[in-house]
Amino acid sequence: MDKKKKIRVGVMGSTGLVGQQFVRMLSGHPSFEVITLTASGRSAGKRYGDAVEWLVGGTVPEDTADLVVEETSAESFLKKDVKIAFSALPSAVCRDIENELAEKGIGVFSNASAFRMDPEVPVLIPEVNPDHLRLVRSQLHRRRGFIIANSNCTTSGLVLALKPLLEFGIRRVGVATYQAVSGAGRHGLASLSILGNVIPFIKSEEEKIEAESRKILGTFRGSSVEELPLDIHASCCRVPVRDGHLESVTLDMASDFDLNAAREALASFQGAPQRMKLPTAPENPILVTGEIDRPQPVLDVMAGRPERAEGMAITVGRMRKNGRRMNFFLLVHNTIRGAAGTCILNAELALRSGYIT
Amino acid sequence: MDKKKKIRVGVMGSTGLVGQQFVRMLSGHPSFEVITLTASGRSAGKRYGDAVEWLVGGTVPEDTADLVVEETSAESFLKKDVKIAFSALPSAVCRDIENELAEKGIGVFSNASAFRMDPEVPVLIPEVNPDHLRLVRSQLHRRRGFIIANSNCTTSGLVLALKPLLEFGIRRVGVATYQAVSGAGRHGLASLSILGNVIPFIKSEEEKIEAESRKILGTFRGSSVEELPLDIHASCCRVPVRDGHLESVTLDMASDFDLNAAREALASFQGAPQRMKLPTAPENPILVTGEIDRPQPVLDVMAGRPERAEGMAITVGRMRKNGRRMNFFLLVHNTIRGAAGTCILNAELALRSGYIT
Amino acid sequence: MDKKKKIRVGVMGSTGLVGQQFVRMLSGHPSFEVITLTASGRSAGKRYGDAVEWLVGGTVPEDTADLVVEETSAESFLKKDVKIAFSALPSAVCRDIENELAEKGIGVFSNASAFRMDPEVPVLIPEVNPDHLRLVRSQLHRRRGFIIANSNCTTSGLVLALKPLLEFGIRRVGVATYQAVSGAGRHGLASLSILGNVIPFIKSEEEKIEAESRKILGTFRGSSVEELPLDIHASCCRVPVRDGHLESVTLDMASDFDLNAAREALASFQGAPQRMKLPTAPENPILVTGEIDRPQPVLDVMAGRPERAEGMAITVGRMRKNGRRMNFFLLVHNTIRGAAGTCILNAELALRSGYIT
Amino acid sequence: MDKKKKIRVGVMGSTGLVGQQFVRMLSGHPSFEVITLTASGRSAGKRYGDAVEWLVGGTVPEDTADLVVEETSAESFLKKDVKIAFSALPSAVCRDIENELAEKGIGVFSNASAFRMDPEVPVLIPEVNPDHLRLVRSQLHRRRGFIIANSNCTTSGLVLALKPLLEFGIRRVGVATYQAVSGAGRHGLASLSILGNVIPFIKSEEEKIEAESRKILGTFRGSSVEELPLDIHASCCRVPVRDGHLESVTLDMASDFDLNAAREALASFQGAPQRMKLPTAPENPILVTGEIDRPQPVLDVMAGRPERAEGMAITVGRMRKNGRRMNFFLLVHNTIRGAAGTCILNAELALRSGYIT
Repeated sequence: MDKKKKIRVGVMGSTGLVGQQFVRMLSGHPSFEVITLTASGRSAGKRYGDAVEWLVGGTVPEDTADLVVEETSAESFLKKDVKIAFSALPSAVCRDIENELAEKGIGVFSNASAFRMDPEVPVLIPEVNPDHLRLVRSQLHRRRGFIIANSNCTTSGLVLALKPLLEFGIRRVGVATYQAVSGAGRHGLASLSILGNVIPFIKSEEEKIEAESRKILGTFRGSSVEELPLDIHASCCRVPVRDGHLESVTLDMASDFDLNAAREALASFQGAPQRMKLPTAPENPILVTGEIDRPQPVLDVMAGRPERAEGMAITVGRMRKNGRRMNFFLLVHNTIRGAAGTCILNAELALRSGYIT
Repeated sequence: MDKKKKIRVGVMGSTGLVGQQFVRMLSGHPSFEVITLTASGRSAGKRYGDAVEWLVGGTVPEDTADLVVEETSAESFLKKDVKIAFSALPSAVCRDIENELAEKGIGVFSNASAFRMDPEVPVLIPEVNPDHLRLVRSQLHRRRGFIIANSNCTTSGLVLALKPLLEFGIRRVGVATYQAVSGAGRHGLASLSILGNVIPFIKSEEEKIEAESRKILGTFRGSSVEELPLDIHASCCRVPVRDGHLESVTLDMASDFDLNAAREALASFQGAPQRMKLPTAPENPILVTGEIDRPQPVLDVMAGRPERAEGMAITVGRMRKNGRRMNFFLLVHNTIRGAAGTCILNAELALRSGYIT
Repeated sequence: MDKKKKIRVGVMGSTGLVGQQFVRMLSGHPSFEVITLTASGRSAGKRYGDAVEWLVGGTVPEDTADLVVEETSAESFLKKDVKIAFSALPSAVCRDIENELAEKGIGVFSNASAFRMDPEVPVLIPEVNPDHLRLVRSQLHRRRGFIIANSNCTTSGLVLALKPLLEFGIRRVGVATYQAVSGAGRHGLASLSILGNVIPFIKSEEEKIEAESRKILGTFRGSSVEELPLDIHASCCRVPVRDGHLESVTLDMASDFDLNAAREALASFQGAPQRMKLPTAPENPILVTGEIDRPQPVLDVMAGRPERAEGMAITVGRMRKNGRRMNFFLLVHNTIRGAAGTCILNAELALRSGYIT
Repeated sequence: MDKKKKIRVGVMGSTGLVGQQFVRMLSGHPSFEVITLTASGRSAGKRYGDAVEWLVGGTVPEDTADLVVEETSAESFLKKDVKIAFSALPSAVCRDIENELAEKGIGVFSNASAFRMDPEVPVLIPEVNPDHLRLVRSQLHRRRGFIIANSNCTTSGLVLALKPLLEFGIRRVGVATYQAVSGAGRHGLASLSILGNVIPFIKSEEEKIEAESRKILGTFRGSSVEELPLDIHASCCRVPVRDGHLESVTLDMASDFDLNAAREALASFQGAPQRMKLPTAPENPILVTGEIDRPQPVLDVMAGRPERAEGMAITVGRMRKNGRRMNFFLLVHNTIRGAAGTCILNAELALRSGYIT
C-alpha cells in the first residue's frame, strides 16, 4: 500500500503502557500511519521520544519519536484529518472525548471499559465475534463515527479459549487468575504492595470478566447482542510478574467429551483475522503446549507469529479431564492481546469490512 | 513441667527448612526437649549452629545450637532414650528409618508423604480429625511405636477451612493455589525458574490435595478411616513468594446458605487443641478478615496467637456468595501450619491422649 | 516507672511506614506513652487501627489501635500536654509544624531531612556523637523546645561502622549502596520500576550521605559542630528488596593497619546508649559476621538484641584488607536503625540527659 | 557467502544458558554454520529442540532444532570436519576436551575461566585488545589448533568502558557490582537464596575481575602479554534480576580531566570489530545515556544495533566528576556481551585475521 494512501490514525493516552504498545505495534503498519499522539497536559508540546518513558521493549520507533505530543482533544484529531483514534485513556476520562470523536465521524477503537456495556458498542475480538462489528451500524444511524471496544485484558484470553470449546457444550466456567503488574498501569501498583507477595483483589476485574464474556460470546440479533447465559465466576489475584496474565480455567461440560478433540479444536482454531490475513493476526491465535509446566509468563508471553503478531497468541497448557470437567491454564499478554493488539486487529477488521473510509 | 520430666524428642532432617521450623518451634517447649538432631552425612559431627544455614527468622535457638548433629539412624534416637521423632526427611528416604523407629517403640511424627495413604496411619490435623488418632491403635497391635503423618502443606489449610463448613453441605470443592517457593525446599527451585514468573505445575501436588482431603475429612470406623466422597479438584501454581500458600476456593453447596453464618462458623471454629489448650494451638485456628484485599502472604502469613502459635492460624478473606456457590481465599503458612507446626501439635495431642509414655 | 509518670509523646505522620515503626517500637515503652497520633486529613477522625495499613510485622499494638488519629497540628500536641513529638513527616511539609512545636516547648525528634544541615540542630546517633546533643542548648536560648534530627537511613549505618575505625586513620570513604524499596515510602516506588530491576539513582541520597557523615562525625565546639573534612563519595541504587540497605564500603586508611584489630574494634564497639542502658539500645550496635556470604537483607535485617532493639544493630561482613585499603559490607535496617529506632534512642538519650522535663 | 562455504562450527554445553545464547546468535550467521551440538550424557541422542529448556527469548531456531545432541567429545567435532568449537562448558570439566580439540586442529573459543590466566591464551575482547589475538601464534608453534578465551562476564563490560578512558590516565579503579542471577547458570542459585534479597558474595568473581582486567588491558610483547599494573578492586553482589550486570565504577584519574571529553570518548569509541564490520559487532559498543536513572537492567540490557548485535553494547550512565575522581554506572548483558556474544565476535575476528582456514 502506498504510504500516501495509508489510513491516518492517532493514539490517545500515548505515553502510558498501553499507549506505548499502540505506538510500537503501529510502527511500520501496512495500513495505518500514526499522525497524532496525545497525552495529558504534562507531556503536551514535547517530542514523543522525550515525553515517554519507553517500557515495551527496544526503543521508541523512529517513525514516531519526533512527533510532538498534543493535549488530548477532538481538535487534535480533526485538524489533521485522522480517521481512526486508538484510545488508551483511563475509563474515568474517556467518555466525553470518545463520544465527541464518534460524533464527528471518527472510528474510535477504545481499550477503556467505559462503553463496553453500551448495547450499541461491540466488545470485539475478531477471532471470536466478528459479526458483532455490525452493531456499529446502529451507531451510524445517529452519528457519523462509532466506538468499538476492546475487552478487559483477562477476558480477551479467556473468551479466545472458550470460543472453540463452545461446540462441546460448556455449562459452567470457573477462572482463577494470576495477573501481571503491568495490568495496573505504569504507576498503578506500589512496589511494597506486590514485591514477594500476592494480592487477592483487583477492583472490578471479576465483574468485568463475567459480564464481558457473556456479551462477547452472545449472539448478534440484527441490532443488538443477546448475551450468552453463561454460568461463569472469576477470582482474581495480582502476582509479582511484569507481563502476562495466567488463568487457571475449570470448565463443566454438558456431557462427556474427548480431551484430544478439545485440544485439537483449540490448536486448529482460526477466525476471521486468519482467513482475511489481517496484518496483526497471529497465524494461530491459540498455541497448545504439551510441556508439563507451561505456559509460563516469562517464557511464553510473546507467543505469536509472525513478528508483527508477537504477543497476539494465547498459550494453553496442562489440559486435563475428570469426568465432564475440563481443566487447563492459559496465558495472555495483557497489554498486547489483552489491550492494544486486539484494538488494532479490530481496526484492521473494520477497515477490511468497509467501516473506515 | 519440670525440665527433667520433659519428653525427650529428636528431629530428623533438622537442617532443612522444615527441620529448622521444628527446631525453632520446639525451643523452650513446655513438654518436649530436643535431644537428638540428625541430618545427612555432610552435616554429621558438626555443631547444629554451624551445620545449619538458618532461614526461619531470628537466630538458632541457644538451647539447640550446641547440639552435635548426627547422621540419621535409628541408633541415634534409641541410644538416648528419645520417645518422639519428628521427621522432616524427604519422602524418598524416610520409609525404612521411620518404620524402624516405629518398630522400636518410638512415636514418629512425619511431615513426609510416604505413609499418608497407609490405612493404619492417620493424616492428622488436630482441629479437624482428632479422632483419627485412634488409628494408631492398629499400629500398636503389631509394633511398639507408631507413625502419624501430617498432611501436605496446601491440604492442611484447605481442610481447616472446609471442616466448619461441612455442616452447610459441601457438594464440590475447587481450589487454585498460589504457592510459595519455600514449599519446594531450600534448594528445590532455581531462581531463574521463578523470578518474575509463575509456574503452573507442582509435581503430585494436585493429587495429594485431592486424596488427603478425602481421608482427613473421612470418618473413623473402629479400625479404619472411611474417606469422605468429596468431589474436589485442585490446580496448583508456584509464585515468587517466600512463605505462605494462598488458595482460591470455590465451594458448591448442597443448598442455599447464609454467608454470615458461614463466616461466623469459620471465625468461631475451635477444635480439640483449643479445648485442651495444647501449647502450640492458636487461640483461633481460622481468622476471618473483612479487608477487601486480604489475606496477603507478606502481611498475614504469621497469623496466630499467642507467640508460640504464630503461623498456626490460617486467614480467610473475600468470602462471597453467588447462589449456592461460595468463594473465598485462604492463606496458610506452608512450613508452620502446613508442616512442622501441625506435626508438633499432633505430638501434643498424642501426649495428652496417652499415646506417649 | 509508674505508668502515670511516663513521658507523654506523639507521633506525626503516624500512618506511613516510618510512623508505623514509631508506633510499634513505642508500644510498651518503659519511659514513653503514646498520647497523640497525627496524619493527613484523610485519616483524621478514624481509629488508628482502622486508618493504618499495617506493614511492619505482627498487628497494630493494642495500646494504640484505639487512639483516634488527628490531623497534624501543633494544637493536637499542646492540648494534651505532650512533651515529645516524633516526626515521620515528609521534609516538604514538616518545617512549619516542627518549628512551631519547638517554639512552644516541645522536643521534636525528626526523621525528616529539613533541618539536618541547620547549624543549631544536631544530627544525632547516640553511639556516635552523643555530645552533639548539647547543640540543643543553642536552640533553648531562643525558644522553649528544640528539634533533634535523625540522619538519612543509609548514613546511619555507615557512620556507625566508621566511628570505631576513625582511630585507625580513615583518609577516604567510598560507598556503593543496595537500598530497599521501603526507603522510598509506602507508595514511593511503582512496582513496574523495580520488579526484577535495579535503579541506579535515588534523588539527593548521595549528597545526603556525604554531607551528613561529615557533620555527624564532626567535633562539637561549644556552640557548633565543626565538620570532619572527610573525603567521601557515595553511589546509590534501589534494589527489589523490602527492607534493609546493604552498603559496599571501601576505606583508604592513612597507614597500614591490622585487620583483626579493626574487626575487633567494630565487634566490641559500644557507645553512650549501651553504657546508659537505654531501653532501645542494642547490646552491641555492630555485629561482625564471619560468614562468607553475609550480611544479607532477608537474613540479617532484624539484627539486635534484646527484642526491643531488633533492627537496631548493623551487621558488618566480608572485611578484607589490601595494603592500606579496607573493604566490607554493612547492612542497616532502614526504617528502624535508619529512621524511627534512632529517633527513639535520641529521645531516650535526651530524657536521660535532662533535656526533657 | 554461499552456505556451502560457511565455516562449520559446534557448540559444547549447548543446552545451558550460555550454550543457548550461542545457538541463538549463530542462527542465520553469515559466516558460521552450526553442525555439532554437544551436552552431557543426559541430553545426548535427543533432538536439540527437545533436549533444551529454551530461556533466551523467542523459540529454538529452526535451523538447529532438529540437530541431534551428542555427548561432548573431541570425536563429535572431528568426525564432521568442524573448524570451530564454541565452549560453554563449566570450567571444572573443560580443560581436557578443550586442549584435545586444540591439539587436533580446532579453534576453541571458550567462555570458561580455565585457561584465562594461561600466558599463551589471549583473553580477547575485540574492541579492546585485538592485537592479543597474536598470542595464538605461540600456541600454533606447538599444536595445530588453539584456545581463545572470553573474559568473565563482569570484566567484559568493565574493560570496554575503561579502554577509551585509559588515555585520560587511570590511576585506580573501584567497582561494586549488581549481578543478575543468570550469571550463576540455569540452576546455580536457589530461589530462596535470592528472592527479595541481595547476596554480597560471588565465588572467585572479585579475583577474576581484578586479574583479567590487568591482562586484557596489558600490552602484547611479541610472544606474551605484559599486564597493566592497574590498581583495581572489586566488590560483588548478586541481585534478584534475570539478566544484566550493573556496575558502579569509581575511577581515580592521574590528573584533572574534562568530563565532557570523557563522555565523548566513550560514546564515540569504536574498535576493530566496527572498522572490520564484523557480523556481530554493534555499531557502537558503548552507549552513553543522559537519563538520570539509567542504565537499568530491565530497560537497557538488550542495547546494541543492528538486530544481530542486540545485547552487545554496554550502556554507561550517571557520569560524574569530583576533582580527579570519576564515577559512573555501566550495564552489560552478562550472557551476550559477557559470554556467548564476545566469543562469537572473537571467532569472527580470528576468521577475518586468517587464523581459521
